[in-house]
Amino acid sequence: MEALWGAGPSLGLRMCCVQVAPARPSAGDFTPSFLRPGQLSNVDLNEDIRELLPRPYPNEIPHNEKLLSLKYESLDYDNSENQLFLEEERRINHAAFRTVEIKRWVICAMIGILTGLVACFIDIVVENLAGLKYRVVKDNIDKFTEKGGLSFSLLLWATLNASVVMVGSVIVAFIEPVAAGSGIPQIKCYLNGVKIPHVVRLKTLVIKVCGVILSVVGGLAVGKEGPMIHSGAVIAAGISQGRSTSLKRDFKIFEYFRRDTEKRDFVSAGAAAGVSAAFGAPVGGVLFSLEEGASFWNQFLTWRIFFASMISTFTLNSVLSVYHGNAWDLSSPGLINFGRFDSEKMGYTIQEIPIFIFMGVVGGILGALFNALNYWLTMFRIRYIHRPCLQVIEAMLVAAVTAAVGFVMIYCSRDCQPIQGSSVAYPLQLFCADGEYNSMATAFFNTPEKSVVNLFHDPPGSYNPMTLGMFTLMYFFLACWTYGLTVSAGVFIPSLLIGAAWGRLFGISLSYLTKGSIWADPGKYALMGAAAQLGGIVRMTLSLTVIMMEATGNVTYGFPIMLVLMTAKIVGDYFVEGLYDMHIQLQSVPFLHWEAPVTSHSLTAREVMSTPVTCLRRIERVGTVVDILSDTSSNHNGFPVLCLPHASDLFPPCLHGVVGRSLRGLVPPQVFVERANLSLVQRRLKLKDFRDAYPRFPPIQSIHVSQDERECMIDLSEFMNPSPYTVPQEASLPRVFKLFRALGLRHLVVVNNHNEVVGMVTRKDLARYRLGKEGLEELSLAQT
Amino acid sequence: MEALWGAGPSLGLRMCCVQVAPARPSAGDFTPSFLRPGQLSNVDLNEDIRELLPRPYPNEIPHNEKLLSLKYESLDYDNSENQLFLEEERRINHAAFRTVEIKRWVICAMIGILTGLVACFIDIVVENLAGLKYRVVKDNIDKFTEKGGLSFSLLLWATLNASVVMVGSVIVAFIEPVAAGSGIPQIKCYLNGVKIPHVVRLKTLVIKVCGVILSVVGGLAVGKEGPMIHSGAVIAAGISQGRSTSLKRDFKIFEYFRRDTEKRDFVSAGAAAGVSAAFGAPVGGVLFSLEEGASFWNQFLTWRIFFASMISTFTLNSVLSVYHGNAWDLSSPGLINFGRFDSEKMGYTIQEIPIFIFMGVVGGILGALFNALNYWLTMFRIRYIHRPCLQVIEAMLVAAVTAAVGFVMIYCSRDCQPIQGSSVAYPLQLFCADGEYNSMATAFFNTPEKSVVNLFHDPPGSYNPMTLGMFTLMYFFLACWTYGLTVSAGVFIPSLLIGAAWGRLFGISLSYLTKGSIWADPGKYALMGAAAQLGGIVRMTLSLTVIMMEATGNVTYGFPIMLVLMTAKIVGDYFVEGLYDMHIQLQSVPFLHWEAPVTSHSLTAREVMSTPVTCLRRIERVGTVVDILSDTSSNHNGFPVLCLPHASDLFPPCLHGVVGRSLRGLVPPQVFVERANLSLVQRRLKLKDFRDAYPRFPPIQSIHVSQDERECMIDLSEFMNPSPYTVPQEASLPRVFKLFRALGLRHLVVVNNHNEVVGMVTRKDLARYRLGKEGLEELSLAQT
Repeated sequence: MEALWGAGPSLGLRMCCVQVAPARPSAGDFTPSFLRPGQLSNVDLNEDIRELLPRPYPNEIPHNEKLLSLKYESLDYDNSENQLFLEEERRINHAAFRTVEIKRWVICAMIGILTGLVACFIDIVVENLAGLKYRVVKDNIDKFTEKGGLSFSLLLWATLNASVVMVGSVIVAFIEPVAAGSGIPQIKCYLNGVKIPHVVRLKTLVIKVCGVILSVVGGLAVGKEGPMIHSGAVIAAGISQGRSTSLKRDFKIFEYFRRDTEKRDFVSAGAAAGVSAAFGAPVGGVLFSLEEGASFWNQFLTWRIFFASMISTFTLNSVLSVYHGNAWDLSSPGLINFGRFDSEKMGYTIQEIPIFIFMGVVGGILGALFNALNYWLTMFRIRYIHRPCLQVIEAMLVAAVTAAVGFVMIYCSRDCQPIQGSSVAYPLQLFCADGEYNSMATAFFNTPEKSVVNLFHDPPGSYNPMTLGMFTLMYFFLACWTYGLTVSAGVFIPSLLIGAAWGRLFGISLSYLTKGSIWADPGKYALMGAAAQLGGIVRMTLSLTVIMMEATGNVTYGFPIMLVLMTAKIVGDYFVEGLYDMHIQLQSVPFLHWEAPVTSHSLTAREVMSTPVTCLRRIERVGTVVDILSDTSSNHNGFPVLCLPHASDLFPPCLHGVVGRSLRGLVPPQVFVERANLSLVQRRLKLKDFRDAYPRFPPIQSIHVSQDERECMIDLSEFMNPSPYTVPQEASLPRVFKLFRALGLRHLVVVNNHNEVVGMVTRKDLARYRLGKEGLEELSLAQT
Repeated sequence: MEALWGAGPSLGLRMCCVQVAPARPSAGDFTPSFLRPGQLSNVDLNEDIRELLPRPYPNEIPHNEKLLSLKYESLDYDNSENQLFLEEERRINHAAFRTVEIKRWVICAMIGILTGLVACFIDIVVENLAGLKYRVVKDNIDKFTEKGGLSFSLLLWATLNASVVMVGSVIVAFIEPVAAGSGIPQIKCYLNGVKIPHVVRLKTLVIKVCGVILSVVGGLAVGKEGPMIHSGAVIAAGISQGRSTSLKRDFKIFEYFRRDTEKRDFVSAGAAAGVSAAFGAPVGGVLFSLEEGASFWNQFLTWRIFFASMISTFTLNSVLSVYHGNAWDLSSPGLINFGRFDSEKMGYTIQEIPIFIFMGVVGGILGALFNALNYWLTMFRIRYIHRPCLQVIEAMLVAAVTAAVGFVMIYCSRDCQPIQGSSVAYPLQLFCADGEYNSMATAFFNTPEKSVVNLFHDPPGSYNPMTLGMFTLMYFFLACWTYGLTVSAGVFIPSLLIGAAWGRLFGISLSYLTKGSIWADPGKYALMGAAAQLGGIVRMTLSLTVIMMEATGNVTYGFPIMLVLMTAKIVGDYFVEGLYDMHIQLQSVPFLHWEAPVTSHSLTAREVMSTPVTCLRRIERVGTVVDILSDTSSNHNGFPVLCLPHASDLFPPCLHGVVGRSLRGLVPPQVFVERANLSLVQRRLKLKDFRDAYPRFPPIQSIHVSQDERECMIDLSEFMNPSPYTVPQEASLPRVFKLFRALGLRHLVVVNNHNEVVGMVTRKDLARYRLGKEGLEELSLAQT
């Protein structure tokens, strides 16, 4: 064995494929994990380690158990500082770095502009199509109100809705299932460092945009705001890479940014731009990105994110202003605009604060109820509705039921209000007197965004308490049923709408109780109710406070909104977790929270790490490498490289048993794949090869390696990161967690006191420990 | 030597002071750095290392050179996970952690309330005292205008100012010099991890508050907003520790938080609360804290910071509302309120954006000029005005000159305006007709806060262009001369005032040029000018944008303000750095920026680290330790502990030469000091001992160690952190920097492939490398 190692350097290390006589190495020396468990480290540790080895996982698992899926891979936020990388970085001078920096800003501006334009497109198309639909139905209802036979109108409405939603659902279910829902859980995972397949592809964006338009036009209880975040993220990922795999186009620009670190930074900016366009909330967008995604805070990155956000809302504002004919007015900063909350007219007093806190409690309870119902529904869907056609049928059913419920509610309502000005978009007269309209219809017969604004700003007395109560009840269940359907749709607006309805009801009740003394304006309570309900469902605090502040354009509302959101979060967390976290967990994603569980100081790296680790030598036989990569069960996607004879010092250090096992570096698997791809071309591998292949490196199985090639030797010194981050095996879990999370690592090598590899910590090892009701709990791992 | 090591464990390790026959260890074995440089690591490395050793530093150095001071110590943001700490953390159960969490929130609420109250106090006292002063002077001027002899009024005004400023300057210069200036550079340093003596003491707070009141009342060109940030930070540090060293009171609460990590988190919250109270900008406060201080972003911490900020502005708002008689109105969210910028009346159009960018360029140039002038002035002060009495005299001179300039300007001005309503606080009639007032006096004869608001909101035509031009010119130089005086004072408001003045002038010129077509409102230009000037001086972008947005209460201004601030920053950075950074650099503080210099990939840990490192054995002789601690030149305030015979495995590993040098842990110096304090009491050291002594551990020289005690053995295993963070010596500087900065470390041990200590990286080793005009430059180190 030593003879072989000795032979390596003398053959010229820079030549990558070196024929070696196949007879020399005996088969036994090259088993995939060439350090067998027993050899790994101090002998006295191995007993403990073996007990901690993960038990064999079941292949198919029921979804109600606490488990983590092994199918998700990690992004690497840490640059692998291998020789190729360092050579490039050292070659780049100061001026070139400035060019790179300028490119980053240009990309951020482009992200902002494109996100804003996509938001405009969605807004304009939805407005026109929904307007068309409501006018058709309204004419029909008006016609049949007089001559009877409104059931035909109901049929028309339900059919229109169901058919539009069918199209929206078909494209999602059959073409790109990852475009379903709001996309916020997926983006949270991506920013957290979990690789979700297809999540930032152009195809996903197209399906998402079309899907959300069709869902909203189809009259489902959904919003178009949440999906903007996903859209922004896809735009960012696409632009920053300068190519599209869906279109198979490579523009040969921005190649420097083709790695996880840079891409993730841009995706943060895209998500922020999405929030900014959706709510006209650039600061809220930055905070959303940071709250949901960031780990290490970097000033320059945050500036760029802010820049993208600002450009995004500005683009949307300009284009929509031009579209609406008041070109230089800039009055539409976001897809939804909560309208003007004048602090003089709608100010709050200190006495109202306990009432707001009470509303927060209500919001927390209702939010938890929403989440719990949705949890059961999602479990049901996972078990029984997993075929695409069933999913489409369910979506159509929901669309038809939504229309039917709306129609019945409007039909049964006797809440007639006089038409004042032009605040009502599609006033349904139905059985009301001339010059009056059906008040229930302003809530049901309208896009949800408009209903929210109406509830905030309609003058006191526009709604009958009965109307509001019935609406809240019905809409609550409809929205709950709708979230999780196989359509692109957001949950922000329905939540706000439910909250605004019961908030307004609450405000009206208060003014009845106090004989209308001080609490004259129910719109303020509608706003607080909306905040409470949304907070109770999604459990965001800082970013949501700022988003609401910016959407209302009123800074003084910040304090009560913050109190309401915090209360809603605390109360809601007492029962179940937030909707997004719940869905992330139902997907068994290895999501890393902000801190390790507080009571985990008793666990050490030795107990949480995975063993055995497949290690490699610095000069390794291609056959060995191929075998290791093909064996997915022992594959951590990162291989420690151990001490080897160096060209300069030849044998001596490795003659010594102990020293021979000390860590020298870490190599990612794509090196071998790229190397194998190029194995016959005898040229040196360049960083460009990795960038061109990023992010979809082919699996090793797809590359044919001949028997001759298997006997070649591969030199890893150029490709390994010679200074991987390590932790001693005695480090506590919080310490390991902090290092892993703060630096956004993918692998963390655990070493003993002599720098010998004893194990490896990856995302799943850390995500496995959670704080449950009875203290620390450990999730099991599964291949699904 | 081995015999002694063998003796250690057998004597019972838990007993901390073990008498050993003094004859046994030969003196040579226990020289302070017992690993002499030559032994440190692989022999072949030492040649290179020795070349890189810092050259001997001069003891007194001129301040215009590029250098770093060695006198600043680092805070440690990383918990030392020693045995005592882990034992405590493992003992604490889930419920107890919840209590700790609740305490954190309570502390944040208290920080917010107290910061708000302090701001109220400053505001009310300033308003009354300044009101008194201006009334006295006004009466005097009115009296002498008619009968002649205005020179007496000038004398009165100048004397009043100079005497008030004298008191303010005396308390700062003689009692607490660290209270001088705005305190923002100091807080930036503290949050960055640099220990600045006295910066968060109660005494500093008292001097700061009194000082700022006296400076503002004394009519200097200063604001009271900047110092609020420092005040909030001190309040936070005090409350979170549950005691005051200035008062010598210990309330025996919040003892869990007595360490750098927790204290720094609370200080972030305090700084945010300060910004929030100063500008009524809670979100801006959070972003300020993050932009200036944070490294690792933690969601929970950010929520608490936001909570403190909100409470702070709410407290201020409530108390000031009550004070002003409109109890439930909540109309004073901050010390300065820019007044209502109505988007309908004062909206902007897209065509104006290039003009705003041009204003950003002007602001950047003027800001750079301000900073450059102030740089020379500061150099002059460092060289010639370092005695406190000279500093007081300079402050008095500036006060008198400010009054004189103001008086002369008012006297010479012929800009009379009719009095409309009650917008002018102290209308000076002087030589104007009855019913008119002198327009120059609204700018000079007023607190700067009121002048800013006047410039923003006075109707078009309130100011003559000549008046604005003269005012800008004079105030620019006065403010520049004032910043850096030995008084407590902020630079925010004077900067805003200068900018508002030239911005308004710019707006007026524009409307002349375009014949008053569209640009009717000069107030908008005053706002942009103010942003440009402030941005050009302090070079903040994100947080300043949000602060301005919140202070104007207008979200739509966000985009142009951001553009203006970014332009000002880019243009300003082309010439000199920001004012705060400049002053930090003039103090030679080892400040760590966000990223390592871009072109530093060619440097490795081996080249930047300090060597030799003083290492200790796990069981060490007290005399050795005392000698090491007394020798401050080789003292890194952290000592690697090397491999030692463990109680369980006795001799074997250490018999081996190579293994014997591998890293086992890291101990901070306070361990020895505390141990020495307790050396005669034969009880076990507890975590509480460290907490009681935190943060001012006595120097080892202050403790008498007898010859007998010197021969005792001390066991470090309980106190050492067994898993310190390490980097391999091949790691590049950016990699080392990232680890150090992201985790907020104080020491980073550099090891070779066998985990043997080869050096240590501390803050100064990283701060030393900077990106200059000609690429990477290295600062020299000095003891001052």
